[in-house]
Amino acid sequence: MSLQQSGDELVVSEDPLHPANLIPELCRGFYQLGWVTGTGGGISIRVGDKVYIAPSGVQKERILPAHIFVLPFPQAAPSPHGDRVFLRRPSLNLKESACTPLFWNAFDLRDAGSCIHTHSQNAVMATLLWPGDVFRISHQMIKGVRLGGMGKALSYLDTLEVPIIENTPNEEDLKDSMAEAMVKYPDAAAVLVRRHGIYVWGSDWEKAKTQTECLDYLFELAVKLKAANIPLVKDESN
Amino acid sequence: MSLQQSGDELVVSEDPLHPANLIPELCRGFYQLGWVTGTGGGISIRVGDKVYIAPSGVQKERILPAHIFVLPFPQAAPSPHGDRVFLRRPSLNLKESACTPLFWNAFDLRDAGSCIHTHSQNAVMATLLWPGDVFRISHQMIKGVRLGGMGKALSYLDTLEVPIIENTPNEEDLKDSMAEAMVKYPDAAAVLVRRHGIYVWGSDWEKAKTQTECLDYLFELAVKLKAANIPLVKDESN
Amino acid sequence: MSLQQSGDELVVSEDPLHPANLIPELCRGFYQLGWVTGTGGGISIRVGDKVYIAPSGVQKERILPAHIFVLPFPQAAPSPHGDRVFLRRPSLNLKESACTPLFWNAFDLRDAGSCIHTHSQNAVMATLLWPGDVFRISHQMIKGVRLGGMGKALSYLDTLEVPIIENTPNEEDLKDSMAEAMVKYPDAAAVLVRRHGIYVWGSDWEKAKTQTECLDYLFELAVKLKAANIPLVKDESN
Amino acid sequence: MSLQQSGDELVVSEDPLHPANLIPELCRGFYQLGWVTGTGGGISIRVGDKVYIAPSGVQKERILPAHIFVLPFPQAAPSPHGDRVFLRRPSLNLKESACTPLFWNAFDLRDAGSCIHTHSQNAVMATLLWPGDVFRISHQMIKGVRLGGMGKALSYLDTLEVPIIENTPNEEDLKDSMAEAMVKYPDAAAVLVRRHGIYVWGSDWEKAKTQTECLDYLFELAVKLKAANIPLVKDESN
Repeated sequence: MSLQQSGDELVVSEDPLHPANLIPELCRGFYQLGWVTGTGGGISIRVGDKVYIAPSGVQKERILPAHIFVLPFPQAAPSPHGDRVFLRRPSLNLKESACTPLFWNAFDLRDAGSCIHTHSQNAVMATLLWPGDVFRISHQMIKGVRLGGMGKALSYLDTLEVPIIENTPNEEDLKDSMAEAMVKYPDAAAVLVRRHGIYVWGSDWEKAKTQTECLDYLFELAVKLKAANIPLVKDESN
Repeated sequence: MSLQQSGDELVVSEDPLHPANLIPELCRGFYQLGWVTGTGGGISIRVGDKVYIAPSGVQKERILPAHIFVLPFPQAAPSPHGDRVFLRRPSLNLKESACTPLFWNAFDLRDAGSCIHTHSQNAVMATLLWPGDVFRISHQMIKGVRLGGMGKALSYLDTLEVPIIENTPNEEDLKDSMAEAMVKYPDAAAVLVRRHGIYVWGSDWEKAKTQTECLDYLFELAVKLKAANIPLVKDESN
Repeated sequence: MSLQQSGDELVVSEDPLHPANLIPELCRGFYQLGWVTGTGGGISIRVGDKVYIAPSGVQKERILPAHIFVLPFPQAAPSPHGDRVFLRRPSLNLKESACTPLFWNAFDLRDAGSCIHTHSQNAVMATLLWPGDVFRISHQMIKGVRLGGMGKALSYLDTLEVPIIENTPNEEDLKDSMAEAMVKYPDAAAVLVRRHGIYVWGSDWEKAKTQTECLDYLFELAVKLKAANIPLVKDESN
Repeated sequence: MSLQQSGDELVVSEDPLHPANLIPELCRGFYQLGWVTGTGGGISIRVGDKVYIAPSGVQKERILPAHIFVLPFPQAAPSPHGDRVFLRRPSLNLKESACTPLFWNAFDLRDAGSCIHTHSQNAVMATLLWPGDVFRISHQMIKGVRLGGMGKALSYLDTLEVPIIENTPNEEDLKDSMAEAMVKYPDAAAVLVRRHGIYVWGSDWEKAKTQTECLDYLFELAVKLKAANIPLVKDESN
């Protein structure tokens, strides 16, 4: 198979901002933040008609450009055997990410350019300390988060809402409940998965990443506020 | 436009201690410390008649010298359209920092050479656990903090005071209340903003940074002391 | 003594994935994670008929390839003086790891390819907060852990069990109780040592490392859940 | 003044393990660990008849070999003006460390080869949560600590004791009470200073550093045990 046919040229670039170079670099940063411990979590970046995704079940801090999957956007019809179609698969026995259908929710329902999944303990704790189907916080530094993840920035006077869905044994099975939550909460920039983690999106990788950081900061703060008996939504304390 | 006219020469230097090189390096360190998560926070450095400031709304750990704004000091009269005057603006669609008027408080009211703004959770928690308009601590390692941020170092026997002002939706609107707090507490080396973060200054970037570290250390310790029911000011426990 | 006879050639390689290069690199990472503070902890890697082990009592973040011990696998009969037989000993007054017999449990009883020992505070706290002889958790991200450390991945619906054994003054004396726990809990991927740390294994260094990360993540989360009065096993809360 | 006379040759070496190169490297690591935040803390290394010490009041993560002070050992009689005698002073307006007399306690009373001072919050919290004049812990990983900091390693069955002295406004004034505590507790490898930090020593920089890590690990664990109502000394719980 020639280089052209293999798709390997899709992940070879000298530009450090090319998705095949960015994803390994960003995943190393996510590892330092405790977001992708033990192979969990990852990131997808969509540029034009291509989606770049990190592989599943590997050490995220050791990904190389050669490990990246490239998929067509919009999604191609599955093969006659029901398999997903790829523009490029790494030749290293790597498995595609089980998060793929969930990343696609962000592309299809929000027109996002990037989606990040973390197993951050701050996110998990938020889903356990607030047992309802939505996490709410106000009067904190929420202005780094955008309406629906894509629109204008929230104001200090808004209340940030992140829906929480229940976990399932297989990551793929979260697709429908995540989509429902995104429709029910059109202003949400993310969906929490109880006892599991979070999906956050943005118009590009920078906005997806900075919003993931803002949300994680808020979850971490929320856990501390809970321990100190301080309500998350200011009005509740009146 | 020639290089001379564009002001680009103001941010090109081989000296690692030139403000245009220092600000990116320091911001990477602040990111590791959790002070500038998700684009929040920043630093300004004043050298002679120039002030160097990081842009707004960008990933602080990825700033480059080419991203730095340079302003004249003292501040030039606004343009006929009311716009701030710059010696150099980055040509990258970057927005000037909303903290600019707050940094200027430190330059004007204290003759500071540098001012740092963080969203550190330790500072935010301090403003929530101590609901009054001033944070006080004594008999801890406060001797890294200077009187008014600029004078002689505090002694172990002094009580450190940091005024707390209330947050506003727009960062610029903090200018007056921050200035008032600085006048009311002339010995304070910083101003806390409730549910938001802190502004700390010093005679140069080194003293601004080490005082920010000392204060953040004290806020972190204060939160732990509160959880352990140990008073912050020693006399109160008598 | 020639290079051939000294065994030094066993730890010289330009391949960054050679065990003699990997062990120093991995130990630097373990140090960052707080797993091998103050010379504690370590890792062994078995490749074919050789076992590579970090030395005892040294700063784990400063190990060099030249410091690595190489032992034959299966273990050679001890020398007439009862000494362990080595294929290569570093010529630097370094002591063999006291963990050697414990690493061997993983090789002999599970056919593991790598075994990691940490003094992680998360593991130690888990053994103190749950005083019985087994740590159990369910409905969290346990799918990064494999049955017996070597088989198929656990499901979200399984309950993860890690046996806990009591510490002894000499590390070597843990060999028998660790082996007993491994036989009693054939599905366990690790053995906790109360007031001391944990031993985790896998079919190769990657699986040993990612399982150690998953387990440490779960212990850290468990400590937080305990402080928040949330049961570790979901059914118990019904 | 020639290079010979200035003493500059005492801090120029290509050996990364030369004290003038090691101290900057170690201080960068201490900064990462939160031990020397905001210019606090430091390290001294004694080799033969020379003592190398980091300067006071500077950012410890930015020290260069040229910043290091070199003093004679044993200490030379003060100058007619009462000034300390140096083999080499940096020509950079740097102040000698106020810890010098305290480091000397370790050299004189224990024949130590290195002494480390930190402002670690774990150490400070230990002095606040245990208000007596000694910190005690048993049945944890104390075997990384040596009798008196210099002798044989403690056993798992021993009880580790670290005396606590009261802080003074001037660091130098701790000299006598630190010396008294060292005489009263000859087996102690360190002295805690209430509301301030700790001094730890060892026969060389490696043993001073690994013992500082072990002790800091134990203080951190102790704070967690206190919050969970678990006694530090096992027998007390019977």
